[in-house]
Amino acid sequence: MNYRMISKILSRVMGVLAVLMLFPAFTALCYGESPSSFLITMAIAATLAVLLALPKLTRKDIYAREGFVSVALAWVLISLVGALPFVFAGETTSYVDAFFEIVSGFTTTGSSIFTDVESVSHGHLLWRSLSHWIGGMGVLVFIMAVVPLSEERSMHIMRAEVPGPTVGKLVPRIRRSSAITYLIYVVLTIILIILLCLGDMPFFDSVNHAMATAGTGGFSVKAISIGYYDSAYIDIVTGIFMMLFGVNFNIYFLLLIRKFRPALTNSEFIGYFGIAAAASLLIAVDLLGDYYDSFWTALRYAFFQVSSVMTTTGFATTNFDLWPSFSKAILVLVMFIGASAGSTGGGIKVSRILLLAKTAKQEIVKMLNPRRTSAVRMDGHTVEITTIRAALVFFTLYITITFISTVIVALDGFDLVTTFTSVVTCISNVGPGLGEVGPMGNFSAFSDISKLILSADMLLGRLEIFPILILFTPSTWRKK
Amino acid sequence: MNYRMISKILSRVMGVLAVLMLFPAFTALCYGESPSSFLITMAIAATLAVLLALPKLTRKDIYAREGFVSVALAWVLISLVGALPFVFAGETTSYVDAFFEIVSGFTTTGSSIFTDVESVSHGHLLWRSLSHWIGGMGVLVFIMAVVPLSEERSMHIMRAEVPGPTVGKLVPRIRRSSAITYLIYVVLTIILIILLCLGDMPFFDSVNHAMATAGTGGFSVKAISIGYYDSAYIDIVTGIFMMLFGVNFNIYFLLLIRKFRPALTNSEFIGYFGIAAAASLLIAVDLLGDYYDSFWTALRYAFFQVSSVMTTTGFATTNFDLWPSFSKAILVLVMFIGASAGSTGGGIKVSRILLLAKTAKQEIVKMLNPRRTSAVRMDGHTVEITTIRAALVFFTLYITITFISTVIVALDGFDLVTTFTSVVTCISNVGPGLGEVGPMGNFSAFSDISKLILSADMLLGRLEIFPILILFTPSTWRKK
Repeated sequence: MNYRMISKILSRVMGVLAVLMLFPAFTALCYGESPSSFLITMAIAATLAVLLALPKLTRKDIYAREGFVSVALAWVLISLVGALPFVFAGETTSYVDAFFEIVSGFTTTGSSIFTDVESVSHGHLLWRSLSHWIGGMGVLVFIMAVVPLSEERSMHIMRAEVPGPTVGKLVPRIRRSSAITYLIYVVLTIILIILLCLGDMPFFDSVNHAMATAGTGGFSVKAISIGYYDSAYIDIVTGIFMMLFGVNFNIYFLLLIRKFRPALTNSEFIGYFGIAAAASLLIAVDLLGDYYDSFWTALRYAFFQVSSVMTTTGFATTNFDLWPSFSKAILVLVMFIGASAGSTGGGIKVSRILLLAKTAKQEIVKMLNPRRTSAVRMDGHTVEITTIRAALVFFTLYITITFISTVIVALDGFDLVTTFTSVVTCISNVGPGLGEVGPMGNFSAFSDISKLILSADMLLGRLEIFPILILFTPSTWRKK
Repeated sequence: MNYRMISKILSRVMGVLAVLMLFPAFTALCYGESPSSFLITMAIAATLAVLLALPKLTRKDIYAREGFVSVALAWVLISLVGALPFVFAGETTSYVDAFFEIVSGFTTTGSSIFTDVESVSHGHLLWRSLSHWIGGMGVLVFIMAVVPLSEERSMHIMRAEVPGPTVGKLVPRIRRSSAITYLIYVVLTIILIILLCLGDMPFFDSVNHAMATAGTGGFSVKAISIGYYDSAYIDIVTGIFMMLFGVNFNIYFLLLIRKFRPALTNSEFIGYFGIAAAASLLIAVDLLGDYYDSFWTALRYAFFQVSSVMTTTGFATTNFDLWPSFSKAILVLVMFIGASAGSTGGGIKVSRILLLAKTAKQEIVKMLNPRRTSAVRMDGHTVEITTIRAALVFFTLYITITFISTVIVALDGFDLVTTFTSVVTCISNVGPGLGEVGPMGNFSAFSDISKLILSADMLLGRLEIFPILILFTPSTWRKK
């Protein structure tokens, strides 16, 4: 293990965190609030950056294990330090709560422990939203976009931090792609801020909601989320942009270089919109009559919620916890499915679901014809057996972690719907669940143990399990 | 496809069904009830047996696809005909209800649509219990034990009907093994009948509960299940025998031939008892104080319920739906895990869980050392990659079917705990779930669509998904 290299990378993470704190500190000043909680944290982060930079690099090599370990430690460290402002400013008295909140931010989950979010200061609200925006694309991807690493070192980090099974398949050169996707990300965010302002949303709210949408995070500055504005225009704009940020960013890159055919016939792209459309229609029909008189109103609320949950953003325009069981079951299902690989969204990812479906189909064919050999194909390419195995193991671990976490969180004694959906919403990085953690609820009532388990679930979900598990694998730390 | 051979096999199934009906018909006579519903069904089954035997066999070959198709069709046909007595005798007016009940019987689920089971006639109660006893070992395995097929033909049927990933690994010769395991099954059942009678359980109740225990079914002749007898002796005897019937029967075979070492060091055997012990202790501690004053009483109830749910029997000695969330969550978890491969129990099976855990561990090692090749090993043997793939795909399909069924059953508008656990309990062949389908509830309130979906889930769970899915795969029916 190249510990010095990891230390170097963590030093950069702390350096970047210190710089990022300038934004909420500045916001606090603008609104006449004290920026001191951010300034103290900046000092701590800067000190850590200096200390971590002390060990001299002896080798520049970085392999898979260093990639995974760097990413996992980077996320834990940035959360541990990023939580401090909430405690220093007295927004919460519990460090565990603050940690949960910022993990929820960086992992773009959007589950909150604040019981009265509208009394939180502007600076701290912006810090939550900014953590979504940074976490969406990845903490280390952000750093690489700013301070490039060598090609091969980047690759190992990208593999560990960017969601989904198909990293770098569409676009070969990682470093350039990292900068270009960030540019797309910035442009889309700015367009959204403008569109929201045009819908009469205040500027501060627009910036926060745009960052939360871009990262598919879901923290809102209002207690009843986007529903506060009660505007069809804002619902539709936000609903569409959530979907856009759940698309694999390589699709946008392909569109930019005018490769329309591979972009628009991509099976994950089609599956993603297909599932969202089907789920929205089914829920709209279910809501029609008892909940909404007009089909279009039902569709507006259904589409917004499906878009919000499937992209794992987690905004709400209504209390869907009051919807009928069928609609709620569909929402839990799309929570599991999640968004596209290579997007800012979470969940299992549409491409993995497609891959699993194709593999299952092929398994049946194989049972009927044991001697025939055939391969799983996707988008015209043969999928390697290792990719399939990784997807199958990922799915298995995802479900296993969900069940085990549910059992532990159940110790708090909440009903099983609250318990189960709190875990699902955290591991899928969505935000709200059902019952006590529904869109109008929050996570403040859980015990510290549950909050730490749910924080771990958020990190496991965001980093797609393996980097975190690798931290706890003895052979990672064994000398070769 | 060798249609004539399938027809021949189905003919035998109908013949055996006609003979089996003698037992409930005789029971009805003993208790002064009318046996006519059974006699009419016998006539129908015998007629079908003759008709299906008409096509002359031209070829004797039977391949994987014929094996799967025969097994799937045999189970559907025996359920379609086996449901008739309930309708003919007026025990229910709905054929769908009768079908649900007997599918629940043959698949050894034990979920019931009867709202007042104690008013059902003795003949029909025995028919339900007998369906558990036959279904536990497998409808076709039963036929093969009575009327042997050739070695190679048996193999394809065993593979499709006997649960778990390791068929025939421990014991090579299938036909002999099939007869020997049946002998063990009969002996254990008789011992249980005697032990229950010694505990002052009436003879009729003892026979029914013993057959329901042996098949890990769970139908009881009492509305409040085994709890009716309120006897520590009966609880402990039943609890232990449920565990015994959840053990891989090859273990007993190995013990018979004095191969103690491989039997007792078998990793599934150890894992099975280990999980049951851990779950019982955790629940006992959770129940202590608020529910029971003494640890041993808590452990008695906890062990019985864990044994009942994990072996997928489904008896109850108390209304565990009233237990705290933690205990309920553990019960749902062991529902998914299920019993051992090659036992009469359902669920995912302990050996698959172990295999998945080992595969996940190996996947992590592989991520750290991409160039190293290593294999998954279990009980000293290298597990073939095809076995691993099949287990992974099985798990994926299991969860997917659970979720999709939940969405459809949610249309009935029950709460999500009732909806979700009704599906889990059916696909795992357990019996009771939580909420409305808890141990004191029943499945009568569901719509016909839900009852058919849940019946399909029971069959999918019992036959381990693939045979049923293969029925609906176009390439099964395509000419070569």
